[in-house]
Amino acid sequence: MLPWSTELAGRLDEHVIASELLRGNPLDDPHERPLWVYVPPEYEGEAGRDYPSIYVIQGYTGFVEMWRNRSPYRQPFTETADRLFARQEAPPAIVVYVDAWTAYGGSQFVDSPGTGRYHSYLCEEVVPWVDARYRTIADRDHRGIMGKSSGGFGAMITPMLRPDLFGGLATHAGDALYEFVYIPEFARAVRFLRDYDGDILRWWEDFRSRVSFTKEEDHVLLMLLGVTACFSAREDGTPELPFDPRTGVLRGELWQRWLDWDPVRMVPKHADAMRSQRAIWIDAGTKDEWFLDIGAQAFRQALAEAEVDDDLVHFELFDAKHGAIDYRYPLSLAWLADRLAA
Amino acid sequence: MLPWSTELAGRLDEHVIASELLRGNPLDDPHERPLWVYVPPEYEGEAGRDYPSIYVIQGYTGFVEMWRNRSPYRQPFTETADRLFARQEAPPAIVVYVDAWTAYGGSQFVDSPGTGRYHSYLCEEVVPWVDARYRTIADRDHRGIMGKSSGGFGAMITPMLRPDLFGGLATHAGDALYEFVYIPEFARAVRFLRDYDGDILRWWEDFRSRVSFTKEEDHVLLMLLGVTACFSAREDGTPELPFDPRTGVLRGELWQRWLDWDPVRMVPKHADAMRSQRAIWIDAGTKDEWFLDIGAQAFRQALAEAEVDDDLVHFELFDAKHGAIDYRYPLSLAWLADRLAA
Amino acid sequence: MLPWSTELAGRLDEHVIASELLRGNPLDDPHERPLWVYVPPEYEGEAGRDYPSIYVIQGYTGFVEMWRNRSPYRQPFTETADRLFARQEAPPAIVVYVDAWTAYGGSQFVDSPGTGRYHSYLCEEVVPWVDARYRTIADRDHRGIMGKSSGGFGAMITPMLRPDLFGGLATHAGDALYEFVYIPEFARAVRFLRDYDGDILRWWEDFRSRVSFTKEEDHVLLMLLGVTACFSAREDGTPELPFDPRTGVLRGELWQRWLDWDPVRMVPKHADAMRSQRAIWIDAGTKDEWFLDIGAQAFRQALAEAEVDDDLVHFELFDAKHGAIDYRYPLSLAWLADRLAA
Amino acid sequence: MLPWSTELAGRLDEHVIASELLRGNPLDDPHERPLWVYVPPEYEGEAGRDYPSIYVIQGYTGFVEMWRNRSPYRQPFTETADRLFARQEAPPAIVVYVDAWTAYGGSQFVDSPGTGRYHSYLCEEVVPWVDARYRTIADRDHRGIMGKSSGGFGAMITPMLRPDLFGGLATHAGDALYEFVYIPEFARAVRFLRDYDGDILRWWEDFRSRVSFTKEEDHVLLMLLGVTACFSAREDGTPELPFDPRTGVLRGELWQRWLDWDPVRMVPKHADAMRSQRAIWIDAGTKDEWFLDIGAQAFRQALAEAEVDDDLVHFELFDAKHGAIDYRYPLSLAWLADRLAA
Repeated sequence: MLPWSTELAGRLDEHVIASELLRGNPLDDPHERPLWVYVPPEYEGEAGRDYPSIYVIQGYTGFVEMWRNRSPYRQPFTETADRLFARQEAPPAIVVYVDAWTAYGGSQFVDSPGTGRYHSYLCEEVVPWVDARYRTIADRDHRGIMGKSSGGFGAMITPMLRPDLFGGLATHAGDALYEFVYIPEFARAVRFLRDYDGDILRWWEDFRSRVSFTKEEDHVLLMLLGVTACFSAREDGTPELPFDPRTGVLRGELWQRWLDWDPVRMVPKHADAMRSQRAIWIDAGTKDEWFLDIGAQAFRQALAEAEVDDDLVHFELFDAKHGAIDYRYPLSLAWLADRLAA
Repeated sequence: MLPWSTELAGRLDEHVIASELLRGNPLDDPHERPLWVYVPPEYEGEAGRDYPSIYVIQGYTGFVEMWRNRSPYRQPFTETADRLFARQEAPPAIVVYVDAWTAYGGSQFVDSPGTGRYHSYLCEEVVPWVDARYRTIADRDHRGIMGKSSGGFGAMITPMLRPDLFGGLATHAGDALYEFVYIPEFARAVRFLRDYDGDILRWWEDFRSRVSFTKEEDHVLLMLLGVTACFSAREDGTPELPFDPRTGVLRGELWQRWLDWDPVRMVPKHADAMRSQRAIWIDAGTKDEWFLDIGAQAFRQALAEAEVDDDLVHFELFDAKHGAIDYRYPLSLAWLADRLAA
Repeated sequence: MLPWSTELAGRLDEHVIASELLRGNPLDDPHERPLWVYVPPEYEGEAGRDYPSIYVIQGYTGFVEMWRNRSPYRQPFTETADRLFARQEAPPAIVVYVDAWTAYGGSQFVDSPGTGRYHSYLCEEVVPWVDARYRTIADRDHRGIMGKSSGGFGAMITPMLRPDLFGGLATHAGDALYEFVYIPEFARAVRFLRDYDGDILRWWEDFRSRVSFTKEEDHVLLMLLGVTACFSAREDGTPELPFDPRTGVLRGELWQRWLDWDPVRMVPKHADAMRSQRAIWIDAGTKDEWFLDIGAQAFRQALAEAEVDDDLVHFELFDAKHGAIDYRYPLSLAWLADRLAA
Repeated sequence: MLPWSTELAGRLDEHVIASELLRGNPLDDPHERPLWVYVPPEYEGEAGRDYPSIYVIQGYTGFVEMWRNRSPYRQPFTETADRLFARQEAPPAIVVYVDAWTAYGGSQFVDSPGTGRYHSYLCEEVVPWVDARYRTIADRDHRGIMGKSSGGFGAMITPMLRPDLFGGLATHAGDALYEFVYIPEFARAVRFLRDYDGDILRWWEDFRSRVSFTKEEDHVLLMLLGVTACFSAREDGTPELPFDPRTGVLRGELWQRWLDWDPVRMVPKHADAMRSQRAIWIDAGTKDEWFLDIGAQAFRQALAEAEVDDDLVHFELFDAKHGAIDYRYPLSLAWLADRLAA
């Protein structure tokens, strides 16, 4: 098949949703967002039937238009997902592609004075919007969420916070076990910030004034700034680093705010929510640059300690780094669709 | 500006061209190809005016649809190019995006029994097709070609072979000085081929049977197979490696066929063609993984030795690796447009 | 000068010291240890004069005989130190090379049920032994300690614990700011331990049964095991990892025991001891693989917060990784000798 | 056993040999050289018996004193070799440790106007010297040579050039297949030489004026300069790089002089010499940074094509990089001793 051909068996509707909750957000990001909704081939024909819905969220610096990106020898997930349903390798489901981009590259799908109310936007605006316009089974037992990296994080925490909305999840290399994920990043950042007098906003100013990603520090500092805005912004929105940028010394209270968002640490507080899930897919590559394979193990163990039934969980490590693991998404999608159809 | 917004000042026409020369090509690749033609903002209004044309070709594993791919904090070249013209930072020009993909990931823009007649397709089919349908200045003095990596290679050699068609070129990290580019790849390939009993076609069979790029060897062996098909295929199309896959020993005659395609070595034979160019842009990143910065220096020096006028040449090394240098394209495009407009 | 020639201006005495404190140590390491004492050129001649003494301790896996190792284009520290004194680039001092090797590769210069009483051995046996046999100025104001890496750690903590014995120190890339040093190591270790069913003693058994350092994991796991034996062994000597080897989750109480040995965290408790020092040299390379440049910054800042006088401190970051920084030792030795002579 | 203990069962005599051939060498290196001769335990007792002799030569930047260097958890080769004989794991043999250091770090064991007559020194001075003073079986059938890296290279070529002297050899990761070994080095060197205006002697001047190996370029440029002095020096001793340092373009005639020293290419010309060997050990690590595993394969294949009897050859690839493979030496020593004893 040609790398540039594409024709879906199902239908992908590209909407724009106007979010009241994102209006006037702290970063002046648009409150109108793309929202793609995919319906499987049989959707058109069978008028009376309702379908499970699965929400797909993206990793850091992802935005919905990127789902369209094409790569050599691989198809976009929108197409591999469609093929699943076309070949009846999974029960039909509605797939919703949500946008949660911010000026800093991401929202972590949380509500924060540093970025905006992306968690609420997802739960209180997107979900009802979809349910109102599509023949979903509008019930948490038939609604799931999945994502990779920061999207995997979002997929872990959203059902913890809103088990009334989500009854299944899939995390691919989702952020977890924050010491392992972030401490090495902080170390790199301290070095990079030497050139900016320890002031990440000076870097940000520089970054915005030139071609992006032409300096070695750009990726690390962008993610650091963005996650700081999500997890440890002041009430007025100012991001406060969880460490002293001149010595690397952790700032106890601010770092604790990050740790409070560590899925591994959140499970005990949300044990009921987790036990109530119908399907939990966890995977990661064993060479993940952020050690998210270990994060996956720790999250898995936290579920066990919270007495989540083993039957609910699919756990898998595979040989890969963090990047280019999009081929895993159809696996979890099919599995979730199957579990959430029942 | 939002990462997902996009609106051109000019117009991008997406055509399909049916190539007679590619019909029945050895790899059974389609003979109908996408061909995008961009016209600048003033094109519509000024009916009588003709424009220079600049052909854009892609690096290995590139295909035209990939120009649409979006990245965070950067715009696609189709948009940055458009902005140049919209802001009158360059004289108006027609920009042509050519597809030369093959099953092996690329054609190197040459005619080969291993892949097909991509050089001829470009020169004898695409160029006349465009000239017939658009108000180009249909003259080599006003026609240029540019590209990166393998596309940079194509941009160097096509004007050498067809100076009657192309009077300007830009190469970004174009393949040159083949010892430095390929010998380290051969070494890696020898190691990888140990698992395939030295037979690259066994790897190819495996590669096609599974998810691509999940094995460490995939990138190296794909490029090796593809370039072999371009440079040292037998008359019957069988790719013959330029080295013994079990010992790494170079195969003199076959390796010489590769070297005959080294732009650095081609310049002396095509000195007139190079001297006749009106504009030659050469750049590369100083950390290029294939040492293409050195290739750029060697190519530059070969031009000097061929007595190409210094005034025709823009040469620049910059701090970057091989990837993510798309922000360089508008620089050369503007420069070429300026030179080819005159 | 020839790489293999060597002749000291001063005299290097190679002793063996029988330690009562190390006798019967938990790892069955020898209680008789090499102890080298260097006296500067003038020592012989000037019978009545006493000299400052500087104790030199080694990094992880170092043992005294390694000071003899020769490298191309560099001289051993024993010789560069001697040259300092021969050229009168530093006031004469006695230099003492202490051995604190263990079966696990090091002792961290602490007393531990996991390895033995190396701190006490150094302070209560080695120092008096030297003072009894050499014309040292047997006073803390004229006694210093220096080292690199784990030896730098030892040089930081020993004067904290025994300010009555040591009045000056130099740390080159000394272990500090333990999150940055150890968390990434723990992450690597979790992965490596998958092959050993999470049991580091299984790895240890394997390591001892074969040629050392032929497996990728050897360096990481050796240091982990050794430092665990130093910092978080049970009373019976069993090393207990400060994290769950199957999930990476930190074990609060055990990890806290490590943190209690972090020089950055120790300074506030030993502020008086630090303020009483006459000379504190801190340096590290800005590319240190364990981020010890940041550790150096944090330690420096902790001293400032403890109101250690700036005049006492030499702080310097330089362009280097962790290895091959032995050329820094003579710099700190000369500086310490100067400060401790006064 | 303790890392610092050492006591040989046999005897290691440390001599100095005054070489007439090295006197007045171009680099003013000393003509008096250390020469160590080891005799096995039984040597003393059995007065009438003669022994095979095996010459051991070193890799680049090695000099004889470095055999004394100690590492954690490993013993020096002088000791592991002794243990072989002490345990009767190999028939007794005399082992000769030869020094061929130069100011540039090595001699490649060849005669060159750039460095001196190290090949002749080894063959015409060292060998007779040893035979005159020790009860060797002074016959090529009972004399072997072994080494690693550049020493492996020396071990391959010396018996080719002097089959009358050497009847057995062992090469561990010996230099071979020069494109793979050197072309990537040349590429790195071109980049590094940008800071020295393309003049490697400017780097050399700088290198000698400061602490060695504190600049990233030091290792690559040192080896390049040294090997150039060995392989492509002018008659007056000036090293001439085999490539244009400003473009990387190979200089045909000079590069050919290097290739003439490629063991893979030398075999056909010295096929008789190779066929006459009684034992040829070839090994290398499969992750060797200079691709010497492939060089080993190519050398092995060259022997096969020269109809060297398979029974004479031990070939082995193992999982390792270039460094820290000293544990391989006793393996080949035992094998050689066995073959050369017969």
